[in-house]
Amino acid sequence: MRIRDIGGEFKLIERVTRAVKNKNVIVGIGDDAAVFEFGNNNMVVTMDTLCEEDHFSRRYFTPKQIGIKAMESNLSDIAAMGGRPLYALLSFALPQDVDVETMDGIYDGLYERSNRYGVDIIGGDTTHSSAMVISVTLIGQVDKEKITTRSGARPGDIIRVTGPLGASTAGLKLFVDNRPGFAAVKLKHTEPSCRLDVSEAIAGTATAMEDVSDGLASEVRNICQSSGTGAMIYRDKIPVEPETIEAAKSLGEDGVNYALFGGEDFELVYTVPPVSADRCPGVTVGEIFSGSGVYLEDKGERTRLSRFGWDHFNA
Amino acid sequence: MRIRDIGGEFKLIERVTRAVKNKNVIVGIGDDAAVFEFGNNNMVVTMDTLCEEDHFSRRYFTPKQIGIKAMESNLSDIAAMGGRPLYALLSFALPQDVDVETMDGIYDGLYERSNRYGVDIIGGDTTHSSAMVISVTLIGQVDKEKITTRSGARPGDIIRVTGPLGASTAGLKLFVDNRPGFAAVKLKHTEPSCRLDVSEAIAGTATAMEDVSDGLASEVRNICQSSGTGAMIYRDKIPVEPETIEAAKSLGEDGVNYALFGGEDFELVYTVPPVSADRCPGVTVGEIFSGSGVYLEDKGERTRLSRFGWDHFNA
Repeated sequence: MRIRDIGGEFKLIERVTRAVKNKNVIVGIGDDAAVFEFGNNNMVVTMDTLCEEDHFSRRYFTPKQIGIKAMESNLSDIAAMGGRPLYALLSFALPQDVDVETMDGIYDGLYERSNRYGVDIIGGDTTHSSAMVISVTLIGQVDKEKITTRSGARPGDIIRVTGPLGASTAGLKLFVDNRPGFAAVKLKHTEPSCRLDVSEAIAGTATAMEDVSDGLASEVRNICQSSGTGAMIYRDKIPVEPETIEAAKSLGEDGVNYALFGGEDFELVYTVPPVSADRCPGVTVGEIFSGSGVYLEDKGERTRLSRFGWDHFNA
Repeated sequence: MRIRDIGGEFKLIERVTRAVKNKNVIVGIGDDAAVFEFGNNNMVVTMDTLCEEDHFSRRYFTPKQIGIKAMESNLSDIAAMGGRPLYALLSFALPQDVDVETMDGIYDGLYERSNRYGVDIIGGDTTHSSAMVISVTLIGQVDKEKITTRSGARPGDIIRVTGPLGASTAGLKLFVDNRPGFAAVKLKHTEPSCRLDVSEAIAGTATAMEDVSDGLASEVRNICQSSGTGAMIYRDKIPVEPETIEAAKSLGEDGVNYALFGGEDFELVYTVPPVSADRCPGVTVGEIFSGSGVYLEDKGERTRLSRFGWDHFNA
């Protein structure tokens, strides 16, 4: 669940974070997904919306890839909470020019990825609109001891990520710039994969977790703000694949900046005490300290970050 | 949950109604909401999307009324299943011209109606789009013996509705035609109210139930198709308020046709054995018979209906 840069966003967030009244809500607005008690279980729910020309474009996404991205971005939110996805509802707002073949392709992508994780698509609706908007609601289950929010990071924890970053942003920029080649990098943008394969293992041990939907810097800032801590990110430890570096170079840019300030990689970033780190898959990219602010250490120099990727409104 | 008239809709429906694999799904795609077992409880979930210029227009809806309609149309789906709503997630796709005051107004409407039923808003997201699209996911609980689908109607049951119909369509037509007056009728379009006040009482007794989101004829047809029955609707028993009849007359139309073929009244239509009817609030408008087809009895004459409101694709 993301709130993007919109005029007056702050007021909206303030408005929406009114205290919820129901005592069964464990995690409310502001995390990757909401968690509430239901009978003897904890249920985790997220709702992510993809808009044409913002999250995808029919100019360079196949219909199937649109479906893949819609499902994976929601699966990733469930992963980030330590949950297991169970049920999905789909909502399509469709312009007149969307034909049955396109919808068939989108369903192919949605079903490919929902099937991969045993998720049943149980409902939703279809309406007319002048813009193509796809919303997915994903409902899952989470064991109480696995619930992992943004707010549990503690000074001394290390910051880890589950895999290479920046490729999705590189892919997007290649598409927008009409650059040929770099097929593997482009696929990271059009066919992302969430990390449900490792999330439950991490969730039992990590003190805080998010998916990297808005760039590493932005996600670490969220963890720090929710946990009341500061963080140091080691620039040279951030995993970025050589092809991503190459692609960025061909665009006159730095691939590590894509990792820091780009987004939609759908890897997980988490904090964990150093003694428990070897139980969690991933590589260390920084550490949590007592204080505030997110700093970047680059060749011995430390800079306080004030630029945070997609999520600009605080800059 | 509605599927509207879209080119090739049938194929989409076919596609989406693939058998779900999870044995805990009690009601899947095709009813007002989905129901699944979760631990010892039954959860009911719906997701309804409102698109500007299709479900609302900023030309004649206040922002608060947009919020009211978005929440009520989802509450109505939970009511139609015999459920109790608990949690809501909101998703906004917003064009550039939507300002903070507009969003504040929309939230006012959403909160007014969620508060009315003790529903907590626990999450969602906000994105950019060229068209305004609001999706609401509503999660609730339903007692097993209260789950009321479309498919339980039996020959001999009577058909009842919980209140007057047609006013929402009359209101819409007055707005579109720029007609002054008829304030109460217009309010039925811009500030609908679901029937959660009576739905649980009916759900214990009714054999089938739906909310009247697409006109009485269309809803009765859905019940008949799902139940494998036919139905007779008595035209002169359909409750339509005098103001609605007046408004329709001023537009050169028949208010009872609005009730039959209009939509978005958010009253409930249900079937019940005659002996149990007095336990359910409402008025009788027809009966279920063994066979197929939906017929209208008007002044002793019986016509098979082939026109079904918003939901044209079968006509």
